Amino acid sequence: MTGWQNLAGSDALNLAFIQRADKLIAPYIVQTPVLTSPVLNEIAGAELHFKCENLQRTGAFKFRGAMHALLHLTAEERAHGVFTVSSGNHGAALAAAGRELGIAVRVAVPNNAPAVKKQNIARSGALITEIEPGMAAREAIVQQWREESGLPFIPPYDHPYIIAGQGTAALELLKVEPDLDVLLTPLGGGGLLSGSAMVAHSQGIAVYGVEPELASDGAASLQSGRIQPAMPPRSICDGLLTSLGEHTFAVIQERVNDILVVSEQEVVDAMRFIWQHLHLVVEPSSATVFAAVCKYRERFHGQRLGLILSGGNVAVDQLPWPVQRLKIEANER
Amino acid sequence: MTGWQNLAGSDALNLAFIQRADKLIAPYIVQTPVLTSPVLNEIAGAELHFKCENLQRTGAFKFRGAMHALLHLTAEERAHGVFTVSSGNHGAALAAAGRELGIAVRVAVPNNAPAVKKQNIARSGALITEIEPGMAAREAIVQQWREESGLPFIPPYDHPYIIAGQGTAALELLKVEPDLDVLLTPLGGGGLLSGSAMVAHSQGIAVYGVEPELASDGAASLQSGRIQPAMPPRSICDGLLTSLGEHTFAVIQERVNDILVVSEQEVVDAMRFIWQHLHLVVEPSSATVFAAVCKYRERFHGQRLGLILSGGNVAVDQLPWPVQRLKIEANER
Repeated sequence: MTGWQNLAGSDALNLAFIQRADKLIAPYIVQTPVLTSPVLNEIAGAELHFKCENLQRTGAFKFRGAMHALLHLTAEERAHGVFTVSSGNHGAALAAAGRELGIAVRVAVPNNAPAVKKQNIARSGALITEIEPGMAAREAIVQQWREESGLPFIPPYDHPYIIAGQGTAALELLKVEPDLDVLLTPLGGGGLLSGSAMVAHSQGIAVYGVEPELASDGAASLQSGRIQPAMPPRSICDGLLTSLGEHTFAVIQERVNDILVVSEQEVVDAMRFIWQHLHLVVEPSSATVFAAVCKYRERFHGQRLGLILSGGNVAVDQLPWPVQRLKIEANER
Repeated sequence: MTGWQNLAGSDALNLAFIQRADKLIAPYIVQTPVLTSPVLNEIAGAELHFKCENLQRTGAFKFRGAMHALLHLTAEERAHGVFTVSSGNHGAALAAAGRELGIAVRVAVPNNAPAVKKQNIARSGALITEIEPGMAAREAIVQQWREESGLPFIPPYDHPYIIAGQGTAALELLKVEPDLDVLLTPLGGGGLLSGSAMVAHSQGIAVYGVEPELASDGAASLQSGRIQPAMPPRSICDGLLTSLGEHTFAVIQERVNDILVVSEQEVVDAMRFIWQHLHLVVEPSSATVFAAVCKYRERFHGQRLGLILSGGNVAVDQLPWPVQRLKIEANER
């Protein structure tokens, strides 16, 4: 393995690199299913193929990138361990990948992260440190831990290893459904979108990222040509609250057709439809892609669309739609 | 094809017949994924492999048997259509299979069937007639329609074609995970359990059916040696309220190790765990198998278990656990 420090920047980020990542991580990941639903097709007026990364290990695509990054460590780096900062799915993914490979993992978690995501990180035996929310506190802890420990920081998205790992989901989807017209992924920091764009663009497939309006810094970045800061964390899409990174933004500028923006209510409606008709528990971030397909119906009408459902880590007793409590009968007669 | 009337009773019901069914229906069905969860393994103290028939077409394993039955019709029988009686998943499955093959389907539905299941039947264009709940009304309408129309009645479970079709789920599971110690399925009318038992028994795998205590006529039948009538429809497991049939009971007596019984609350807890950790929407009937594994922990400890999740047709705005409404922010600033 090349080690964490020895990668030649984003030069390494090409299709062959993602294909090698695919082979490297294959023994560790779930080849997640690609599902369809006649009901959702009818609602959207298009042919939808859902790549179900909510069924990935630790419930999100993040396991791909985290595992790929760790597999590149040298034996010495492995022995010392790694750290990261994550409000959820990346932290849990890195913790689980680390446990599997016998690598110690330390995670700084913003104290406003969803409880279910904190539990997922703790469950895999990572050492957790709570920090304040926001990019400033994130950067401070990275700086501090780097200086104190010298351990590799495995970032949640902005690194070629991570991007290549996330791109393997699109690669798998295209093995099953090669004839797509369009690929849509949620957009947060851009790891999933940029990895997917590398893959889809090489095969002439249009690529769209989708963001909630309350975290639409990605669309603003693309429009202004400069990375815009993350917006205040108001969106229900807790996986999409970070700003873009240098590596991800460069790929997105070059290979993504457009960034589509949806409302909070559109996300909630889409999420409920996916639960009801696809029989999958997905988190709000995942639902953005189906929301976009419904909102921009004319643009996608009659086309073959691939949608990456990014994750399913949501508390099933806290839902953004009204739920009537179904009474159960006592067993005692 | 042999036609509906020309089957030589349950003599036909052997492993080779199920293997032929598997080949026949393969072009029409979803090869549903087999999923695992480290969290659920830990809760159960065993290695669990979930066969996800909630991700089958029309959201339940029932599509297998219905499609298999229709594929055995003669051209003349196809032209005239078929009918059935079903409170849910079988009706929707037969309607969808009929639409795909161009066969008219008429379904009698008890008026207390869950709305979401009635909608699923209507969605596939079947002609629906509402009837009173209970076995008497079911038998009366079958008698009446038989006399009036002479059309084939495609029963929900008690027929070798149906049983063989349902058995293909276990066949697929064992292709992916051949080294199981035990296979568990929910038990209602016994189509899924008897088909699964034919398959698993032939490979030396122990087979258990699982019932809710409020619909435990199957356990009572096995104990008394005679088919016991269905209990009043009080259980939350709306797919498991029917009594056994002659064909299914014969197979179950011969090849099922035991029938396990769980409480309503155990079903609800199991269902919530599956939603939370497997990221799947399953209906209460499906959750019985995981409930049994948790309840009879010592019996299954450390073993490799196959569990068939039978379906996912449940209204996601009516749940049997308390759900807090998550507020969303307005997009307008």
